[in-house]
Amino acid sequence: MTGTLYLVGVGPGDPELLTLKAARLLGTVPVIAYPLTGEGSALARDIAAPHLNPAAIHIPAALPMSVERGPAQAAYDAAAAAILDHLRAGRDVAWLCEGDPLFYGSAMYLVSRVATEATVAVIPGITSLTAAAAAIGRPLAARNETLKVLPAPLPDDVLRHELALAPAVAIIKVGRHFDRIRALLAETGHAAGAVVVEHATTTRQRITPLADFAHAERPYFSTILCYRGDEAWGAVA
Amino acid sequence: MTGTLYLVGVGPGDPELLTLKAARLLGTVPVIAYPLTGEGSALARDIAAPHLNPAAIHIPAALPMSVERGPAQAAYDAAAAAILDHLRAGRDVAWLCEGDPLFYGSAMYLVSRVATEATVAVIPGITSLTAAAAAIGRPLAARNETLKVLPAPLPDDVLRHELALAPAVAIIKVGRHFDRIRALLAETGHAAGAVVVEHATTTRQRITPLADFAHAERPYFSTILCYRGDEAWGAVA
Repeated sequence: MTGTLYLVGVGPGDPELLTLKAARLLGTVPVIAYPLTGEGSALARDIAAPHLNPAAIHIPAALPMSVERGPAQAAYDAAAAAILDHLRAGRDVAWLCEGDPLFYGSAMYLVSRVATEATVAVIPGITSLTAAAAAIGRPLAARNETLKVLPAPLPDDVLRHELALAPAVAIIKVGRHFDRIRALLAETGHAAGAVVVEHATTTRQRITPLADFAHAERPYFSTILCYRGDEAWGAVA
Repeated sequence: MTGTLYLVGVGPGDPELLTLKAARLLGTVPVIAYPLTGEGSALARDIAAPHLNPAAIHIPAALPMSVERGPAQAAYDAAAAAILDHLRAGRDVAWLCEGDPLFYGSAMYLVSRVATEATVAVIPGITSLTAAAAAIGRPLAARNETLKVLPAPLPDDVLRHELALAPAVAIIKVGRHFDRIRALLAETGHAAGAVVVEHATTTRQRITPLADFAHAERPYFSTILCYRGDEAWGAVA
């Protein structure tokens, strides 16, 4: 009677943006595991905190952010081993994921270590992308537009190519790449229509047109949505 | 004391995949509006049904699917007028949206008619995209991959261009374009790694590798996710 590993999307930050399904599961699951995101801090756990089974066993996992093959392998091996102990004992485990588990998450590295022995089920979550669009209040994409999601660490030439002529673009993982991204957006005609959303759906949420972003400032936990003009907003096609 | 118009994402189909925030709002809001999707049927209303305030006034809106400028304008004008009557009387209105309100929805056509008089707030929802990935159990995108969302009605040359070399692609609005899409995916090397998800998260959910899809068959309410090989699934970068 091996337990099931649930990958649970806890959404972008607002604890009310978990799904009913995620909240129900987290209220009863006996083991909860999550990545540590700093000294004793764990963003996914903090988001889910109001909904967690108070009697649950916690497995915090120290996973390297910047992935080097050796240390990352060892860290995921250790987390998977701790989770497998509970699954083998018949206890279900919920692995908490910011946003959605399969949208640029790292849960897949755990799954590959667990799926040979146990069932894995995924509960989708609200992504940072739709959360950012909701905060701004303008469509992420509409009608028959292509939507591109571009991770900021991509090389300049790839970003430049994908940004050219793209009607709707979302830049994720901005972090330390902000200056590069700002320059590339200017170069490809997106600077005027780009909006920076920081800490979407939390009490620290801030929405700033890219053009108004102070020169020396850097955004935190941000997504940049790029719009071309106002034509997609409100007019019937 | 004008009311607020809430655009509420009701998710992909499973009534448990609404957010806690959406369920809380829908349990108390005095007016609920939604698009009709057929003879008396309304998919977004059906998904949200278990959570609706039983005393709510309902505003079903007949909106044309294939948008022709004149009739569509008149239909949205009429829906907006009915909603504005309630907002002006101080009653909040929830407009139900399948999936997420700002991810390829038509809610924006209402907003443009209402936003000059009333506040509009958006509650994001689980998209058909993350729901499809959850059903398959493989990442939609990972690491620093570009993710492209392509509406199937786009012209062949645009689709061909965007599909070429794309690591992760999701095709939405497949419908009557299935044969064209299948041919284009074969042409661009995506046929072997493409998976068709129908009715994601509902009791009618069906997952079929594109290569196994019967020749004369057509998928319903489907999203096609395209994966390149297995390299994104499980290996630490």
